[in-house]
Amino acid sequence: MAHHAPTLDEVAREAGVSRSTASRAINGGNRVSPAAQAAVDAAIAHLGFVPNRAARALATSQTGSIALVIPEPDDKFLSDPFLLGVLRGVSGALSGTETQLVLLINHANQPEGQMSRYLRAGHVDGAIITSPHAGDHLEDDLRGMRNVVFIGRPFRSEGIAYVDVDNVEGGRLATRTLLDAGRTRIGTISGPTDMTAGLDRLQGFTDALGAVDLPTDAVESGDFTAAGAEAATHRLLDRRPDLDALFVASDSMAVGVRIALADRGLRVPEDVALVGFDNLGAATAMTPRLTTVDNPLVEMVDAATRRLLARLGSGEDVGENLVLPPTLVPGSSDR
Amino acid sequence: MAHHAPTLDEVAREAGVSRSTASRAINGGNRVSPAAQAAVDAAIAHLGFVPNRAARALATSQTGSIALVIPEPDDKFLSDPFLLGVLRGVSGALSGTETQLVLLINHANQPEGQMSRYLRAGHVDGAIITSPHAGDHLEDDLRGMRNVVFIGRPFRSEGIAYVDVDNVEGGRLATRTLLDAGRTRIGTISGPTDMTAGLDRLQGFTDALGAVDLPTDAVESGDFTAAGAEAATHRLLDRRPDLDALFVASDSMAVGVRIALADRGLRVPEDVALVGFDNLGAATAMTPRLTTVDNPLVEMVDAATRRLLARLGSGEDVGENLVLPPTLVPGSSDR
Repeated sequence: MAHHAPTLDEVAREAGVSRSTASRAINGGNRVSPAAQAAVDAAIAHLGFVPNRAARALATSQTGSIALVIPEPDDKFLSDPFLLGVLRGVSGALSGTETQLVLLINHANQPEGQMSRYLRAGHVDGAIITSPHAGDHLEDDLRGMRNVVFIGRPFRSEGIAYVDVDNVEGGRLATRTLLDAGRTRIGTISGPTDMTAGLDRLQGFTDALGAVDLPTDAVESGDFTAAGAEAATHRLLDRRPDLDALFVASDSMAVGVRIALADRGLRVPEDVALVGFDNLGAATAMTPRLTTVDNPLVEMVDAATRRLLARLGSGEDVGENLVLPPTLVPGSSDR
Repeated sequence: MAHHAPTLDEVAREAGVSRSTASRAINGGNRVSPAAQAAVDAAIAHLGFVPNRAARALATSQTGSIALVIPEPDDKFLSDPFLLGVLRGVSGALSGTETQLVLLINHANQPEGQMSRYLRAGHVDGAIITSPHAGDHLEDDLRGMRNVVFIGRPFRSEGIAYVDVDNVEGGRLATRTLLDAGRTRIGTISGPTDMTAGLDRLQGFTDALGAVDLPTDAVESGDFTAAGAEAATHRLLDRRPDLDALFVASDSMAVGVRIALADRGLRVPEDVALVGFDNLGAATAMTPRLTTVDNPLVEMVDAATRRLLARLGSGEDVGENLVLPPTLVPGSSDR
């Protein structure tokens, strides 16, 4: 899309002053007569010209804002408790500061690289990126930027500061819980395979079953949505109707898994035991209460925001990457 | 908060090139040797310097983005069907375009004027503002800007482009519906009085009752939240226990009104008839189904986005303000 906002020349012409006078007036220079300043202000109001503070902030890069980048479309963002929790957490961490929160989300058919271009153009002082996908190029485009912190490890994390939970260990913990309950025919509804959280939790599942020489092939991806998980559960049980347990890689997906199991007349935990992942509200709303792995969202968001603000405030490095241990939250769905 | 991002001088020093070479390399100039370009790129990656595209876009003001401004904190935004509908609508309207959506919301204790400063600093090409409050100064700060469209009339609308529903007529329509059903002791749970939607709907209520010489003093503000409306209903019925009907200025608030009425053993519509406002989902979820006034959200968002994109694309004016007529959506709560 071509944008035809007024130019500095048009502002100067409208105000009846020289380009340099218009520029000084816009930039708050003190060699501007009150009359010229008023004329430029009126021209700006009339033309809709936005004085480009960024232009004079080149030396300091101060915009007074940080971006929270959620490279998901609005319907995914608004239905995902993890992403909503990140927004609440970052917003809360900025309470009382003078930093404007700028939220970048995708729209449908978002052109590749658009978010990175916006971030690199200097419209924010720093950014917290969450839910990075393999295809969105954010990690490549922002690699080496010291004013960027990821929540969730990107695929190639060299030169990228991030905080995360140990998703591999979380997947192991969930799967071992089902093994400890005596289940032996265990499958998983995995997250999307273009996100490290999806792949890592699957890796943990595979590790735990491989360690006791059980098969690891009962896997379908549910894409971190309830509807996706419902369909994935049907696909999985169509080919493996004998399964007696499922590790579901997010609690949101467990809602869809429950629907699919009920459709097939399968009881939880009697016929199929379940362990989820996240502990962000959905688990406690289920009957029986879902046994799940705690995703330390609050700690991750706090750490990411504190690191970024410290970086922006004092110039200190954001520090070592932080990978928090997962913990099991017992419910009644696993045994 | 002071932000200490690296300066152009630091980039030049780190790269071992002159300031002007660094500037040319950053700005994509062609008089830069490959070696110098590589050194500057490496310095930028190391220092986290964000090349300020805005600085060289001063003449065109092209950022490739528009802001959706929702001057509410995250918890209000995320629980309000109107605001969520606006986000979905704007995001949908941008589908397939190259325009980045930038969402600005408040955090708790947001400093006055902060959003306006961000918008005026040229970080977006235009803005759609919704849910303006009297105290947020957005209308004063952005008056005369031709690249700004409000959804919802601001208090002093001179020099401001907006789209809205006729809220006064909507309030009249709702109240007349209760009169037509034979109710004569009618109160209202109003919206916040620092928003024109709140005041205008209240004005319509007052007009309709005044036209038939009925008292207009049974008013309590529910602040457009279910919890606020529940408390407001108790306050209102404590002093006016004889009321036989309520115009509730938003369907979200009607949820809270229903709870308060049930607590008092009052049936809908037998004891107290109800008419709401919005028709954004909550009305159809209630039993009996809520009679309500349709708020043409989709049409408003479409109109606002089309006008802004046309303004940015071709420079044409955003056009006359648009005020859409409200329509009644019959349910079973009014008679």
